[in-house]
Amino acid sequence: MNLQNRIERGLEQAITFATAGGKPPKVCAAVRHAVFPGGARIRPRLCLAVALASGDRNPDAATAAATAIELLHCASLVHDDLPCFDDSDLRRGRSSVHAEFGEPLAVLAGDGLIVSAFETLARGCAQAPETLGPLVTTIGRAVGTPHGLVAGQAWESEPEIDLRDYHRAKTASLFTGATAAGAIASNADPLKWLELGEALGAAYQVADDLRDTAATIEELGKPVGQDVAHARPNAVEELGLAGAVTLLQETVRKAADAIPECAGADMLRQLILGEAKRLVPKKLAQSAA
Amino acid sequence: MNLQNRIERGLEQAITFATAGGKPPKVCAAVRHAVFPGGARIRPRLCLAVALASGDRNPDAATAAATAIELLHCASLVHDDLPCFDDSDLRRGRSSVHAEFGEPLAVLAGDGLIVSAFETLARGCAQAPETLGPLVTTIGRAVGTPHGLVAGQAWESEPEIDLRDYHRAKTASLFTGATAAGAIASNADPLKWLELGEALGAAYQVADDLRDTAATIEELGKPVGQDVAHARPNAVEELGLAGAVTLLQETVRKAADAIPECAGADMLRQLILGEAKRLVPKKLAQSAA
Repeated sequence: MNLQNRIERGLEQAITFATAGGKPPKVCAAVRHAVFPGGARIRPRLCLAVALASGDRNPDAATAAATAIELLHCASLVHDDLPCFDDSDLRRGRSSVHAEFGEPLAVLAGDGLIVSAFETLARGCAQAPETLGPLVTTIGRAVGTPHGLVAGQAWESEPEIDLRDYHRAKTASLFTGATAAGAIASNADPLKWLELGEALGAAYQVADDLRDTAATIEELGKPVGQDVAHARPNAVEELGLAGAVTLLQETVRKAADAIPECAGADMLRQLILGEAKRLVPKKLAQSAA
Repeated sequence: MNLQNRIERGLEQAITFATAGGKPPKVCAAVRHAVFPGGARIRPRLCLAVALASGDRNPDAATAAATAIELLHCASLVHDDLPCFDDSDLRRGRSSVHAEFGEPLAVLAGDGLIVSAFETLARGCAQAPETLGPLVTTIGRAVGTPHGLVAGQAWESEPEIDLRDYHRAKTASLFTGATAAGAIASNADPLKWLELGEALGAAYQVADDLRDTAATIEELGKPVGQDVAHARPNAVEELGLAGAVTLLQETVRKAADAIPECAGADMLRQLILGEAKRLVPKKLAQSAA
């Protein structure tokens, strides 16, 4: 089974558990809306790719780790889109959860997805129980406070932002969490994969800044120009368009170089370079061609 | 160490981890505000009492289970108080989290507490890793969808409420989760404790309805009359005041009778009867005396 199929099957199974019996109907629909159809699923693909490159010794645990990471990413998108944050009605080219179901159900769907992520880990690690503790700890650290997604979003409520902490927590943490979790699921050493996760997180942050500035709404499936609108730090503001594109190319190269020696190194390199291409907004790619 | 000390120490340790380094400052303060000073801590006390009654074989796992349950309860209070739900500025006799820190930080503090609960379980089960999977599954089921707290709150967004499912999910689930988790932490059979958890959940639901109708704001530390204000089902509306008091007495007796034979049965009975007294609003207790 290829990566994408494993991820979609893992997500489908998790959402089937989270909505078993179909009641209460609206929150079940909201939870499903938050996860399907998905975006690029880059974080779970990265997690599974590292698990495969490390021997895929516990396939169920690896699929569960990848699934949990995507559920948590989806939860963060649902809450970030709320009126009290980005107030975004558009996500992945259609209504955001709160625009479709209202604010209460969006808060609850996000909460439910967070819980479902950890339940998914517990189910997936039944045959490899020694991996559950490290996976919960690693993934929890990547999404909670003081170093994970929640902390990253919380930096936006501070009068002064520690930029390094902000970017690490808001973007890099889930990439380093994804590589570490993939290694842990295969009983491999997560530290070997830390540098790759950090480089990818940095690359994704720059790419995100570029896309927010130079992509179209159709391309992005969500509003553009949000960083300026919300007075958030953005690499294009700091370095100019050409500077940001150069920085992206450098960080992608650094990420490709950070892949440790392993059986799946080629597959991983392809995944990273393909993703880097996808992340450059079309009008920049055309002008660079 | 008595129950209360174990719980407060467990919570202090969990919040110390969740706010390590103190950054970003506001979300760290919001997370702490949500947990300290606490309410009656009835759910974690119940969890620990069952663990003790079952031999307290893995004290760290039991304390972690009790702590996680209280963190999740606190998270649910923070989110329930949000403007899009109860819009309550008062909780435990002082400002609710969103009243004190604003809506974005209240959403994030709740999210952070949910994640912290599962991280706490992973840390606490390091010496008894066989208990982690069952604890994550049991506690996750008690708080998520489709049967836990999130589902209970989501019933309030439905045009027609399934009353039995609503009460079970919104109130009883965390009581049955607390008894089951206490048993699991001590390697005991959680099913033996199911009836007690369900009876206590039912009692607490009636008590909560009574308090919402007949308590004072000072006594409750939060606004009263919320069920009528939000058109929520309430036992006093259905049965009248006397009928609801009788129902409370019956369910408490049922709970005391549901305690399985064990070393700690007396302690548990005292906990339940003491709690039942605490839950009856003063003016009803005086008029009944």
